[in-house]
Amino acid sequence: MQTAQLLVGLDVGGTKTAALLTDASGSMLGQTVVPTRTATPDELLDSISQAIHLVLGQAQAMPPQIQRIGLGVPGHVDPATGIVHLAVNLNLQNYPLGAALSARFETPTFLENDVRTAAIGAFDALQLTEPVDSLAYVSIGTGLAAGVILNGRLHRGHNGLAGEIGHMIVEPEGALCNCGLRGCLETIVAGPAIVRQMLAAEPDMQIQHAGDVYETAVRGNPNAQKVVQRVSQHLSQTIQWLIMTYDVEKIVLGGGVTQSGDAFLAPILQELACLRQQSPLAAALLPDEKVHLIPSNFNPGVWGAVNLAKQTLLEPLSAPEKS
Amino acid sequence: MQTAQLLVGLDVGGTKTAALLTDASGSMLGQTVVPTRTATPDELLDSISQAIHLVLGQAQAMPPQIQRIGLGVPGHVDPATGIVHLAVNLNLQNYPLGAALSARFETPTFLENDVRTAAIGAFDALQLTEPVDSLAYVSIGTGLAAGVILNGRLHRGHNGLAGEIGHMIVEPEGALCNCGLRGCLETIVAGPAIVRQMLAAEPDMQIQHAGDVYETAVRGNPNAQKVVQRVSQHLSQTIQWLIMTYDVEKIVLGGGVTQSGDAFLAPILQELACLRQQSPLAAALLPDEKVHLIPSNFNPGVWGAVNLAKQTLLEPLSAPEKS
Repeated sequence: MQTAQLLVGLDVGGTKTAALLTDASGSMLGQTVVPTRTATPDELLDSISQAIHLVLGQAQAMPPQIQRIGLGVPGHVDPATGIVHLAVNLNLQNYPLGAALSARFETPTFLENDVRTAAIGAFDALQLTEPVDSLAYVSIGTGLAAGVILNGRLHRGHNGLAGEIGHMIVEPEGALCNCGLRGCLETIVAGPAIVRQMLAAEPDMQIQHAGDVYETAVRGNPNAQKVVQRVSQHLSQTIQWLIMTYDVEKIVLGGGVTQSGDAFLAPILQELACLRQQSPLAAALLPDEKVHLIPSNFNPGVWGAVNLAKQTLLEPLSAPEKS
Repeated sequence: MQTAQLLVGLDVGGTKTAALLTDASGSMLGQTVVPTRTATPDELLDSISQAIHLVLGQAQAMPPQIQRIGLGVPGHVDPATGIVHLAVNLNLQNYPLGAALSARFETPTFLENDVRTAAIGAFDALQLTEPVDSLAYVSIGTGLAAGVILNGRLHRGHNGLAGEIGHMIVEPEGALCNCGLRGCLETIVAGPAIVRQMLAAEPDMQIQHAGDVYETAVRGNPNAQKVVQRVSQHLSQTIQWLIMTYDVEKIVLGGGVTQSGDAFLAPILQELACLRQQSPLAAALLPDEKVHLIPSNFNPGVWGAVNLAKQTLLEPLSAPEKS
């Protein structure tokens, strides 16, 4: 039996759970994706466990070899206690997910909100080519949120809600948001919102995802192009806001909607170019190099989760801040 | 001759310079306000020196008793070098104001942007009654900007531009801003913008300052009320944005426009009450207690400037962050 020195990182989504196994130095030994089952907390734990056993199998390793587990969870979590306060997509409320997983694998478990976890993963990945000490990772998927790293440390905020930019009000008379407010940014810039805007213009269009809207726009449909332009204008504005508020070095865009790649990114860069033309301040602060798109084959969530596990050994990047 | 243990804090504005003298423990020994002269850097130094000599005189003290000087400057400054990169209202560009003042008084001088300096002063003042570890101080005057304190430390950002919320784009087709962009928040929520909006509705109205618009609104003028409502809605939105991005514990409102007191604050609180009614998230995050108005007889700028001088002895609140 080898000593316990393997690290597991998990990105637990509402439909899929991705897992990554690394050695102590962070080299990948295995990775997998399994369906997330959410009927009960026990079933959720079963699907997470399945993912862990699969990556262990790839490395011909056994559970006792796991030193620590890190996981990103889509919801409001308390990293200090391992409790998930609310994760609607996982069907969890005030559930001690960290403790439950620790008990199953007899090993410490560290959890954090999924977008923040991905922000850590994006931050680590960026360090390999371009050392920075701050960034905002913007996740554009079912919702819209940012994970923010300032001075090399995760910024959680007083209530652990820093970066909840999806609920910034941008149109006080706009569409009703899940949160009860009207015209939150998320009612314009997020997967379901993009689909809804498209269907408002063409009710009979056969589309499932935001990706279909981007594809239709590229193929020349003027209504789809209008939707994409509106979303891109709001996203370029969001990028400008994040720079003017946090003054971070990099903006990293990730999440499901960004999988449309160039069709997604090009119109945003075009909007930023317009701003640069208008203003020397914008020209100085909003160069294209500041904006990074997560490659479609890279999941920052699982890598950030490994960091969650790993960093707790050292100066923790994701330590709960005093409050 | 006593040992050098007096601290001087200065708030250098485009028209007035306020000075405060304290002993090492921070007890006030003198305060004054003099006109700022900006024709040349030497004249500016003369008017600053005049303020310093006046407060020294009030305490029957001499220049060699000054241990350190701190000052807040309206512009883009580098605290590490003491250089003012650009301060339009002081007629300074790339001027070593810190070194020049140090030479005059043969004592170390520390400077910082004026809004950030006031944020430090507001933070210190709040500690006396209600210990917090984060806040955003929003200055609404000739322009609009925020000074942000996170985890008890000033957040300057990568380019020293964090908190420049006046240039967040809110109406892409809106009024032209000094910065070249259109529809910056500052084109709606700032003294000159409030006057401009009033005059757009009633060109013949005799008004000088935003305060006149608030007063006219209180007296029942419907056009003034419309302007106040628009400004207040944007300000409540700004408060909501600052909470959703930074998740700070407190929002402190200061600057010239806030001198209208209740006429200024009441409509903002009304807008926040509306948001709370709409959404449990807003109800949890936007209670009235989170919003503080700087009392009209308290200048956070000079107190923050004293802290700038004092804190450098210890763990610096206002230390330049690594970049």
